[in-house]
Amino acid sequence: MTSDQSEHTLSDTEENIMEATHTALLKHGYADLSIARIGDELDGSKSSIYHYYESKDDLLITLLEFTVNKFESALDAERSQNPAETLKQLIAKLLVPDPPEDDYQFQTVLVGFRSQAVTNSRIRAQFTRVDERLADTIREILERGIAENVFEAVNASEVTEYILATINGGIYTRVTTDRVDAVTATHSMLVSYIDSELIQDAV
Amino acid sequence: MTSDQSEHTLSDTEENIMEATHTALLKHGYADLSIARIGDELDGSKSSIYHYYESKDDLLITLLEFTVNKFESALDAERSQNPAETLKQLIAKLLVPDPPEDDYQFQTVLVGFRSQAVTNSRIRAQFTRVDERLADTIREILERGIAENVFEAVNASEVTEYILATINGGIYTRVTTDRVDAVTATHSMLVSYIDSELIQDAV
Repeated sequence: MTSDQSEHTLSDTEENIMEATHTALLKHGYADLSIARIGDELDGSKSSIYHYYESKDDLLITLLEFTVNKFESALDAERSQNPAETLKQLIAKLLVPDPPEDDYQFQTVLVGFRSQAVTNSRIRAQFTRVDERLADTIREILERGIAENVFEAVNASEVTEYILATINGGIYTRVTTDRVDAVTATHSMLVSYIDSELIQDAV
Repeated sequence: MTSDQSEHTLSDTEENIMEATHTALLKHGYADLSIARIGDELDGSKSSIYHYYESKDDLLITLLEFTVNKFESALDAERSQNPAETLKQLIAKLLVPDPPEDDYQFQTVLVGFRSQAVTNSRIRAQFTRVDERLADTIREILERGIAENVFEAVNASEVTEYILATINGGIYTRVTTDRVDAVTATHSMLVSYIDSELIQDAV
């Protein structure tokens, strides 16, 4: 299994396993997830899972990659838009004060999985990679906006990390505290930041 | 045990237990922490611990409170300063790209403990409370700066949540990924934000 080291396109079978893993996670949570339970979501077949994945961690590492792929494809469909709108949509998708139940559940699973990055180097490498990919996406939007004279000529790399840290902090707050209003305020401040600091003033 | 519901001053014995808990956590990590191991840091006496605390979670919930108290006392000693300097010091204490080993270890413990807030309502209530206290501190500094005409008349509550989410996201990034440069960039952007957006321009 090298899914955490190299990007590869998933086969239909692998995609079905990923959808089943996602469904099983929402039903049972991370602690009670088992390959048997993922098999239950695949007409009871565990053998195809074992063909591709050795462990629960393998499955979750690939699921993270799969989820980022889906997120980026959805965003790609909107790339023709104004960069400011694309950036606001990215933020609105990730930092949601009142997310649908399934999205919220999935975020809670990710927080549990991510906490293991502290001691597990494979999980740490995968979250490093996920954040790198999100940072690349944000940086590309910023650089396009700067090139198109939509955004001020800011330091795109620094602004990227700032936006990503704020999004990650907001999601973390949403999932680990009852401070929903804090998430609403953080989202609204990020949008204000784009409007007042990033977007060039009309001449 | 109602330490998570009401603020109370810790006795000397309780403070000793907290210091021992902190030491034992750094030695053994959260998963391997036990009341016996905390007792080892207290000349082997477990009985005083059981007098005050029923469980490991009780101890950690109180340790969190104790840590925030210490943090706020240290900051209080600097409150006479310019509000902009106080705010920068708060950020510099919390969001450290290259923290001392003990502080880093303690942050890793907190990430593990905080991930349980997803399913444990007592732990969730305590992290809600910790973030509320930090938010109150930031808001007070902002309000003082606005009153003293050091800061622009911003929406202090919204700016508070934005700063706190960015700090939390930065700490989370530091502990769960290898993206140290991202933390440096986030810290530097927060300082720029204070300088260019919060501090009033000299007239």
